[in-house]
Amino acid sequence: MFKTVRGMRDFFGEQERKRQYVIGICRSVFEKYGFEPLDTPVLEELGLLTKKGSGGEAIRKEIYSFRDRGDRDLGMRFDLTVPLGRYVASNPQLAKPFKRYAIGKVWRYDRPQKGRFREFTQADVDIIGVEGAVAEFEVIAATVEVFMELGLEFKVRVNDRRLLEALVLKSGVSKGEVADCVRVVDKQDKVGWEGVRAELKEKGISTEIVNVLKKSAEFEKVVRIVGSRKEGARTLKELFAMLKEVGLDKYVEFDAKLARGLDYYTGPTFEVAVEGFSCGGGGRYDKLVSLYGGKDTPGTGISYGIDRLLDVVGDKIKIPSKREKVFVFGAGKVELKEVVRVVGALRERGIKVEMDLMGRNVSKNFAYAEKKGFRKVVIVGVKELKEGKVTLKDLKSGNEEKVGVEGI
Amino acid sequence: MFKTVRGMRDFFGEQERKRQYVIGICRSVFEKYGFEPLDTPVLEELGLLTKKGSGGEAIRKEIYSFRDRGDRDLGMRFDLTVPLGRYVASNPQLAKPFKRYAIGKVWRYDRPQKGRFREFTQADVDIIGVEGAVAEFEVIAATVEVFMELGLEFKVRVNDRRLLEALVLKSGVSKGEVADCVRVVDKQDKVGWEGVRAELKEKGISTEIVNVLKKSAEFEKVVRIVGSRKEGARTLKELFAMLKEVGLDKYVEFDAKLARGLDYYTGPTFEVAVEGFSCGGGGRYDKLVSLYGGKDTPGTGISYGIDRLLDVVGDKIKIPSKREKVFVFGAGKVELKEVVRVVGALRERGIKVEMDLMGRNVSKNFAYAEKKGFRKVVIVGVKELKEGKVTLKDLKSGNEEKVGVEGI
Repeated sequence: MFKTVRGMRDFFGEQERKRQYVIGICRSVFEKYGFEPLDTPVLEELGLLTKKGSGGEAIRKEIYSFRDRGDRDLGMRFDLTVPLGRYVASNPQLAKPFKRYAIGKVWRYDRPQKGRFREFTQADVDIIGVEGAVAEFEVIAATVEVFMELGLEFKVRVNDRRLLEALVLKSGVSKGEVADCVRVVDKQDKVGWEGVRAELKEKGISTEIVNVLKKSAEFEKVVRIVGSRKEGARTLKELFAMLKEVGLDKYVEFDAKLARGLDYYTGPTFEVAVEGFSCGGGGRYDKLVSLYGGKDTPGTGISYGIDRLLDVVGDKIKIPSKREKVFVFGAGKVELKEVVRVVGALRERGIKVEMDLMGRNVSKNFAYAEKKGFRKVVIVGVKELKEGKVTLKDLKSGNEEKVGVEGI
Repeated sequence: MFKTVRGMRDFFGEQERKRQYVIGICRSVFEKYGFEPLDTPVLEELGLLTKKGSGGEAIRKEIYSFRDRGDRDLGMRFDLTVPLGRYVASNPQLAKPFKRYAIGKVWRYDRPQKGRFREFTQADVDIIGVEGAVAEFEVIAATVEVFMELGLEFKVRVNDRRLLEALVLKSGVSKGEVADCVRVVDKQDKVGWEGVRAELKEKGISTEIVNVLKKSAEFEKVVRIVGSRKEGARTLKELFAMLKEVGLDKYVEFDAKLARGLDYYTGPTFEVAVEGFSCGGGGRYDKLVSLYGGKDTPGTGISYGIDRLLDVVGDKIKIPSKREKVFVFGAGKVELKEVVRVVGALRERGIKVEMDLMGRNVSKNFAYAEKKGFRKVVIVGVKELKEGKVTLKDLKSGNEEKVGVEGI
């Protein structure tokens, strides 16, 4: 018997409907905020995906890659940002700002483990060409609206890479050790503060930053330490002011330790924590477009892990009630085409209808309708049909009445 | 500069929005007809994709395949039917009828040519577990509703493999030559009747079938030739009667020569011709599930080529008018956060809003708004703000008025 490939899975029925619902919300909010949809091929040149200096170079071994029959080295995309970089770099005529969203699957040959899959879906929004913090404002505002629409508890955690680096320097870490130190701090979520302290000690790096960060819950405190003229401080101050102006500050919190794969980001960084779990993040990456051969162009964006979100809080997402669905079947010696006619008339009026396709008897049809969660059943009987009527039964209340098709 | 991989392409903006619109219509109609969504991984075991006796065995060379780092032989799916076969075969507990839809990309290493791509999107609906023609009725009824919703001219062409085989036999072709003859007839769309005649002659097969088919536009005529008790004749008669019952017969036409890769299909076959171009098809394949290790189970379904459809008639598909979008910018020395506040208030009321992210001057902002097709522009000025107002300008009429934000 064939199975799904290791680390990948099928989504069916209600589960897939919920996935599509979440994707639909992302799509509609992104459109409302003026982002344009971009769909790119799943396959890209391997040279693009593993470009020197890119995130792909570091995870080369996790990329599904192969040589095609035309001797091209290809790979399956591992995120939606690299294709964005290619698109912008190779379309220099695009008007700026360039605001795009993309929703699609990505692949990583990762060690499969609980909650980690080799195929997963991401939803990304990015703004290319804007230097100011207003770009971060747009990305965060859209994010807040997405998670509010989904009815979830969430926070957008925000930091700035330059601020964190300055803080690390101030805590007595030498310039050459800053990147290393930040990488260790970034693991705090997983290993805790004691883990961070131990790893820093092991690397021979001052552990003072742990004390500093533990006391730095407030943005103002960090600004006092590093100085308000520091670029990261100025940017975040502007950003927080804009968020406050429209009442979004209550969904956003400053997080002095947030790094999110620091090598890549050049300014603000953010992370969405849904019900306490990180379900996505992003930040400013001013070198993306030039990396792939385009002009030096600022950029910022965020990516949500759709499957991760559903795995973590899927139960809390409720799809708003849909139109009621009706199950129709014939009883006794009624002809199939009579049933079909009733079904056609109901569908014409927009009702969601299924009908007996198996020619089952009445009790089996009731059992099927119960099993599939239908609340209303229409029974087409010979006698009722002669009066132009059918029997409508409510499976919950047990009520039954004879009605014309237009009465359903 | 990096490009898209040969035979694959990017979709952006209006083009992608239209693609999503078509996909959305398919999804909503399929849901209305009681089909459940199934999403399967892009990668499958190569052994599944190339199973002996399957369509995949024949096109093995067109499958993108490779060995992963765990020594698995994998391939990218080339259609959505094989994953359906796997899913049903390996989930024997599924209630029958099993009605599912799937919309997604598939890949074939085909020779790239006009209108042919190596990555393309399909939308499929299938019913597993139903023997009667009522399953074909459901599939065709859903198809008619999809293409009506899209506002396109279309016909669903219908035939039955058994009928065509009987016709070929009656025309004097020997039993051993039937499959070959049908395969030649299937090319009529591309090579014309003279091409069919020439190829049959070349193969030493009687060409009488060409005369028979040219005169067999009507179903009744074919039934008279092969006999009304022939299985294919009985099935189509039932199917046409059901379609007529709900007034769908006008969208359906009998097509005696339709074969659609005959080896695979075991009963009725169909094809959707949109504005004269084939944009999809399907039929009954009673051996699918058993092929992949499941119990012998009847099945029928249809697949639309979404990209093909857009390439052929995309211009004729109109997305219903959306909410109006508004472009907002500040004039003079107005603070960015004031602009942000206006934008926030408009978005809160559900309006689709973009704002100046570049800090451009008034004339550049007007130029940008014109270029991006905004009809309404909101200018936030210092003086007006003091009165709690902004300037709303209609770019089409040139009218300008001062209004409170709630007046937009």
